[in-house]
Amino acid sequence: MKFIKTPVKGMCDMLPSDMRLREHILSMIKETYATYGFMQIETPVMEHIENLTSKQGGDNEKLIFKVMKRGAELARAIEKGEDYADNGLRYDLTLPLARYYSNNKETLPSPFKSLQIGNVWRADNPQKGRFRQFTQCDIDILGDETSLAEIELITATTSMLSKIFAEIDIKEFTVHVNDRRILAATALAAGFTEEQIGSVLISLDKFDKIGLDGIRAELIENGYDSACVDKYLAVYGKLEGGITLESFCEDIPEEFLAAEVVDNMKEILGVVTPMLGEGVKIVFDPTLVRGMGYYTGPIFEVTMDGYNFSIAGGGRYDKMIGKFCGMDVPASGFSIGFERIVTILKDHLKEAYKAEGEHVAYLIDKKVSLDKKQEIFLKAKEERAQGKTVTMQPMKKNVKRQVELLEAEGYTRFEKIYAD
Amino acid sequence: MKFIKTPVKGMCDMLPSDMRLREHILSMIKETYATYGFMQIETPVMEHIENLTSKQGGDNEKLIFKVMKRGAELARAIEKGEDYADNGLRYDLTLPLARYYSNNKETLPSPFKSLQIGNVWRADNPQKGRFRQFTQCDIDILGDETSLAEIELITATTSMLSKIFAEIDIKEFTVHVNDRRILAATALAAGFTEEQIGSVLISLDKFDKIGLDGIRAELIENGYDSACVDKYLAVYGKLEGGITLESFCEDIPEEFLAAEVVDNMKEILGVVTPMLGEGVKIVFDPTLVRGMGYYTGPIFEVTMDGYNFSIAGGGRYDKMIGKFCGMDVPASGFSIGFERIVTILKDHLKEAYKAEGEHVAYLIDKKVSLDKKQEIFLKAKEERAQGKTVTMQPMKKNVKRQVELLEAEGYTRFEKIYAD
Repeated sequence: MKFIKTPVKGMCDMLPSDMRLREHILSMIKETYATYGFMQIETPVMEHIENLTSKQGGDNEKLIFKVMKRGAELARAIEKGEDYADNGLRYDLTLPLARYYSNNKETLPSPFKSLQIGNVWRADNPQKGRFRQFTQCDIDILGDETSLAEIELITATTSMLSKIFAEIDIKEFTVHVNDRRILAATALAAGFTEEQIGSVLISLDKFDKIGLDGIRAELIENGYDSACVDKYLAVYGKLEGGITLESFCEDIPEEFLAAEVVDNMKEILGVVTPMLGEGVKIVFDPTLVRGMGYYTGPIFEVTMDGYNFSIAGGGRYDKMIGKFCGMDVPASGFSIGFERIVTILKDHLKEAYKAEGEHVAYLIDKKVSLDKKQEIFLKAKEERAQGKTVTMQPMKKNVKRQVELLEAEGYTRFEKIYAD
Repeated sequence: MKFIKTPVKGMCDMLPSDMRLREHILSMIKETYATYGFMQIETPVMEHIENLTSKQGGDNEKLIFKVMKRGAELARAIEKGEDYADNGLRYDLTLPLARYYSNNKETLPSPFKSLQIGNVWRADNPQKGRFRQFTQCDIDILGDETSLAEIELITATTSMLSKIFAEIDIKEFTVHVNDRRILAATALAAGFTEEQIGSVLISLDKFDKIGLDGIRAELIENGYDSACVDKYLAVYGKLEGGITLESFCEDIPEEFLAAEVVDNMKEILGVVTPMLGEGVKIVFDPTLVRGMGYYTGPIFEVTMDGYNFSIAGGGRYDKMIGKFCGMDVPASGFSIGFERIVTILKDHLKEAYKAEGEHVAYLIDKKVSLDKKQEIFLKAKEERAQGKTVTMQPMKKNVKRQVELLEAEGYTRFEKIYAD
């Protein structure tokens, strides 16, 4: 019988120091979001394969870990040449939330402010910092169609990030906001059609990587009219040095962009700005696209200087839950890149994340009597009741080495107990 | 496109009140075990199918959710008629721990005190209180061959259970202890052979359900010599009214039972007894068997009056990790029935588990100005910094109803904000 010692490909064993750091970050996340009234929920890790492959998940649907049917159902599937899988592991927390809300909406408050912390699975090619099992952390507000939802999402998330990064003396990060309706209006104003918007935005999304020249080449290659492309990119060419929401939008004719969309964005920027901590900025970023096709309104992303990835992102998706419920439910959500945050903290900490509080180790010689053991275990019980960490170990032949190893784990007091 | 609203068969959506209770119990578990020096670890939910089907898991191996191979590997498996699955969801936390320890033992302390909290999956027939995804919570001590390990496991677990059940005014529970070596010696002394012990213990394990007469009938039916059966059962017939370790063991000849086994059990009982809280008992229970075949020494189980299931159980399994490592590692563990504990608490709580602390709701009229919104969001920020839960919601037409629903969620203060 051959046993395999390593974990499944692309997945990790969490060491005690990893777990201490993760649990510490999670407790800050839970505490902060709780003060904003977000309520933690949980769904099973498996979802019906029909839901997972319903075209809501974009490219993630290609990366599903499928779970096989069992027993008679599997036999029948093999015989009839049907699908062998009835379930799959979730690739995100948004699709399960949509199913959850439609299943439980009668018992949930409205608006419903949800906090989900859970693992998701994607059969991606493993690479540094990207795993096949990883933790996502999402907050969502369902049933609030106003900008109060976005203001809550952004202030809660920035306040949580400020708390976490304060631990490694990082104060600076930037919240980028945009609106899908402004993106659409800009494309329409340049002469693109409604149907072309999706494809044009896929190119614009590469702004940071390939620049305006790259986008131009891609759009032309995709067969778009060059006059249209030039008019479109001229708008983004004026952005250098930053631009305000007002000056960007005043050039877009009102037939393409309703005044209330701009007012909505003004309100988000206006209310959020004075609430941000020192070092935190919120900026209107007309090139922010965000990949997922399901966004319908404001979108947002958090970046940090020196890191070429975002550490949180989200937006409004008013139509998605309707696909489950049969009736539209306004929804807006923010997902933080938990694994990325863990990686940044781990890189900045000088040593493995240590447990807090006094740590005491009793090293007990084999020959110690039952009476004496009773006595020291009772003493340990008292110390534990005071919140100290106490461990009881058989004394080893090489006590010096034993103490050194315990010191490395954070133990500071050692009681060697010998027979009388 | 048809979406399925219900969760996958046998699995649950956790409502906010469920999650509050679960998180509250989990925090008591983590805090208590931390003071005993147990370190939290985590393994991926998936394990190699080869490990899961290695005959360590007994009947649970029939209940595995298998994960399908993907892409070229799946195509090859179909073409060659090989297994379609390369991974499976773990059915317990013990097998993953054994793999984890053998994979990471160079960086782990010795003895290593592990705490695992995680979901496991079994494709069992769903029934009341039994789910296909459920949370297990295990503590294990690896690398300590002495009874200090059992003393730590039992005192940590009883102290944790006392804390949890104090919340619903339950103080009474009983820790049953036995030793696999005493069970074996009793069978050998009655005349059974070494090879017959496993089968005889399967019958003895039904003591609570079918009684001595039922066990006798089963053993005779299994073809065992009736003189042997009578001699064996006579020992257990004398138990009524309770029996001490000493009086039970003094009848077993020393050729079958080494004195150190009895001394070891004496030490466990002797040290643990004075440490138990009011209402908690520890008893030597010679009929305790525990199903899993891998136990090698002391075994233990916690029961509560009025419940026909155990709420925690465990024992020593010195040979199992060796199957991964190639060298024996002494190991002893205690697994608490987390879902059972949640169910008992839920049944005893008069109402849904509420969040703690002051809860404030700002109900904001649509016409409120940007300036005023800035002002009240800043006020909310201050209150949140004080640890209060504050939610900001658009005011609904039926404010009275809105307030009632928020009250049901635990909100106590309502600020209605109108335009000036």
